[in-house]
Amino acid sequence: MVHKIIKLAVTDVRFPTSLEQHGSDAMHRDPDYSAAYVVISTDVGLRGYGLTFTVGRGTEIVVCAVEALAGLVVGKSLEEIISDFRGFYRLLTSDGQMRWIGPEKGVIHLATAAVLNAVWDLWARAEGKPLWKLLVDMDPKQIVSCIDFRYITDALTEQEALDILMKAQEGKQQREDQMLKEGYPAYTTSCAWMGYSDQQLKQLCTDALNNGWTKFKMKVGADLEDDIRRCRLIRQMIGPDNTLMIDANQRWDVGEAIAWVSRLAEFRPLWIEEPTSPDDILGHAAISKALAPLGIRVATGEQCHNRVMFKQFLQASALQFVQIDSCRLGSVNENLAVLLMAHKFQVPVCPHAGGVGLCELVQHLILFDYICVSADLNNRMCEYVDHLHEHFTSPAVIRNACYMPPKDPGYSSEMLESSVHTHQYPEGDVWKTLLNK
Amino acid sequence: MVHKIIKLAVTDVRFPTSLEQHGSDAMHRDPDYSAAYVVISTDVGLRGYGLTFTVGRGTEIVVCAVEALAGLVVGKSLEEIISDFRGFYRLLTSDGQMRWIGPEKGVIHLATAAVLNAVWDLWARAEGKPLWKLLVDMDPKQIVSCIDFRYITDALTEQEALDILMKAQEGKQQREDQMLKEGYPAYTTSCAWMGYSDQQLKQLCTDALNNGWTKFKMKVGADLEDDIRRCRLIRQMIGPDNTLMIDANQRWDVGEAIAWVSRLAEFRPLWIEEPTSPDDILGHAAISKALAPLGIRVATGEQCHNRVMFKQFLQASALQFVQIDSCRLGSVNENLAVLLMAHKFQVPVCPHAGGVGLCELVQHLILFDYICVSADLNNRMCEYVDHLHEHFTSPAVIRNACYMPPKDPGYSSEMLESSVHTHQYPEGDVWKTLLNK
Repeated sequence: MVHKIIKLAVTDVRFPTSLEQHGSDAMHRDPDYSAAYVVISTDVGLRGYGLTFTVGRGTEIVVCAVEALAGLVVGKSLEEIISDFRGFYRLLTSDGQMRWIGPEKGVIHLATAAVLNAVWDLWARAEGKPLWKLLVDMDPKQIVSCIDFRYITDALTEQEALDILMKAQEGKQQREDQMLKEGYPAYTTSCAWMGYSDQQLKQLCTDALNNGWTKFKMKVGADLEDDIRRCRLIRQMIGPDNTLMIDANQRWDVGEAIAWVSRLAEFRPLWIEEPTSPDDILGHAAISKALAPLGIRVATGEQCHNRVMFKQFLQASALQFVQIDSCRLGSVNENLAVLLMAHKFQVPVCPHAGGVGLCELVQHLILFDYICVSADLNNRMCEYVDHLHEHFTSPAVIRNACYMPPKDPGYSSEMLESSVHTHQYPEGDVWKTLLNK
Repeated sequence: MVHKIIKLAVTDVRFPTSLEQHGSDAMHRDPDYSAAYVVISTDVGLRGYGLTFTVGRGTEIVVCAVEALAGLVVGKSLEEIISDFRGFYRLLTSDGQMRWIGPEKGVIHLATAAVLNAVWDLWARAEGKPLWKLLVDMDPKQIVSCIDFRYITDALTEQEALDILMKAQEGKQQREDQMLKEGYPAYTTSCAWMGYSDQQLKQLCTDALNNGWTKFKMKVGADLEDDIRRCRLIRQMIGPDNTLMIDANQRWDVGEAIAWVSRLAEFRPLWIEEPTSPDDILGHAAISKALAPLGIRVATGEQCHNRVMFKQFLQASALQFVQIDSCRLGSVNENLAVLLMAHKFQVPVCPHAGGVGLCELVQHLILFDYICVSADLNNRMCEYVDHLHEHFTSPAVIRNACYMPPKDPGYSSEMLESSVHTHQYPEGDVWKTLLNK
């Protein structure tokens, strides 16, 4: 059966999370978790759903970019796309005129992610499988054929990628069974957003511990004395044996990052996340080197805009945890490239999630990574944030602080029609009410 | 007098340059040189004009982004902005919601450039000076107060920037006089676009030589044998003593770049421009190292998206010519940071120009660089392309292959009303006619 794409629709969907300081950090004080939400329709009735995550204002710009890409998608069939997915990826990312406003970065790349996420969802639905299982069942050659190796062959060739995947065929079935039974380990960021009160933080830690969580991330970077106080509080709450990570959301310059984080070393954070500009590879390398003697490692990636940047972070030993993002990189295609490079450089992948739908999507990628690439759970965990899952038709399922593999066909990226309807910006009921206040 | 900004208007202006292959290269086969063109109006009648350059499709996305930024500008006075220009720059680039879709890269940063270019034009007009002269007459402290040093203090502190500017006060007046008399040296890219025939190329070289040009850039990277043939042809045309540069517009991977350019060494190019991804700092460093023994240097920058990237290119010795762009970096503010870093690292600046308005704008920056920062013309020249100047009210003036300093107040960024009107996309007459064909 041929699935011809006959329509692409995109919606600006926003949730007023800033009202309660959910998601607040040192650089994003008032995020309204949002998405450019894409629905592609085929002539046989099957649909694909995709999105990219944003934090409020500016979502309309990404929507505009999705509309600009739509002409490259509508009229093609799913079969045509997947028969040369590398070529289709490059069609979207290397349009001779549109690449000028990227290339492969910022708004246009976020839009590319939204569109391709919908295509991958469509593919998985057409096969009747959850996306992770579609990937797991794929021939290594076909996996590799989805990746654009342009600009990364000095770090990973097509043959090397193929070799990695072939080697990991061994034990694949056991790892799939293990995941279905136990799930993939997660950590929580829900307890310690910047804007939360101490009382709120304590209560959330207590609840999380009761629910079996053992790994906790908190936001730092606004005020050093306040960070020390909050680090002490959370370390007391979680005890000496649980894991603490800290996240500065790009707040510092290089020297400042080293000095500030050194002051927090007594609380034994596993990593400092986003200490400085997401573009500063050499800066992250300097910070990594300075903090290594303190036993603190560097994590980054949620705003690392493409595989060329990740390649250099790996080449320069500038990160010790790779935080892929399902909606900033160019969808599954580019994430595959990064997973394979991370494996070659032997750096663990700990995906970024949260926001709207990021947990739902990225769990598929990390399941594939474990089953078919890394075969390793050491120092690996996937972020989890407990917000907005109720708006999805197949919300992420957490059991004993682990992501349980999704079972529904697709990329878990479909939102409830009613949620989309009421949260459309600015015409949905939620916004009509808020904006008229 | 207070100049309160009461309106910001933005227009999608496109020129159908692809019809004649002007601007064609290995990655951009059919550019339609375009601009998101901004006009800000004040309550006292004075206006500021700014733009960012694009190459056709996607310009509407940048327009959308400018509209999203407009709310941060309208209602402010020019005096309020310039009294804390660093703060205003950060207001635009670090909005807690919009920075997510950047930060400081791609569409949102191009839009920032367009808006700030209009503010600088307004300022220069309010002072009755061409922009370069406004900068030259400014106190070093005020120059430095326009720069956001966030993320670059490990390479250049505010005090170091100030010291550079103070030191260059010596001889300033002589250099200004010299520029007014002789102009700033330029090179031409007009002779050898990828899509031109040999006949066209020969004729254009002959004409350029007759007009006094001594430095020529050609496009390479589509086909090696064809590059060899065309390099040979142009070297024969210009003779052994004139300067040849080659430009691959990001066509290659790292290893491929080294192999390909080595084959062109016999034609003695001064530099290879954009050999690979604009994001690949370490790749450019590897290419620089490999080509140095052949006497070929590496130039890049027209798609280097912000000061953090330029900082690393300099730290890693990844370029030997810094090609600033007036419309991709965050306007004059961010270009000042890059000029000062380039000086500290002792790497010559050779601006990117061409397109629509890039020559008009960037000449101001390089004049300031010579008079107030570098005090050096060795190995320095500004790109010139002979297209579309007729659409500006104060077009760039070339005499003896040199840019003559503009005399009209402002940033030379105002387009003729009639040009804007007829080239508006898609409703202008030019496009109505083309699109109905």
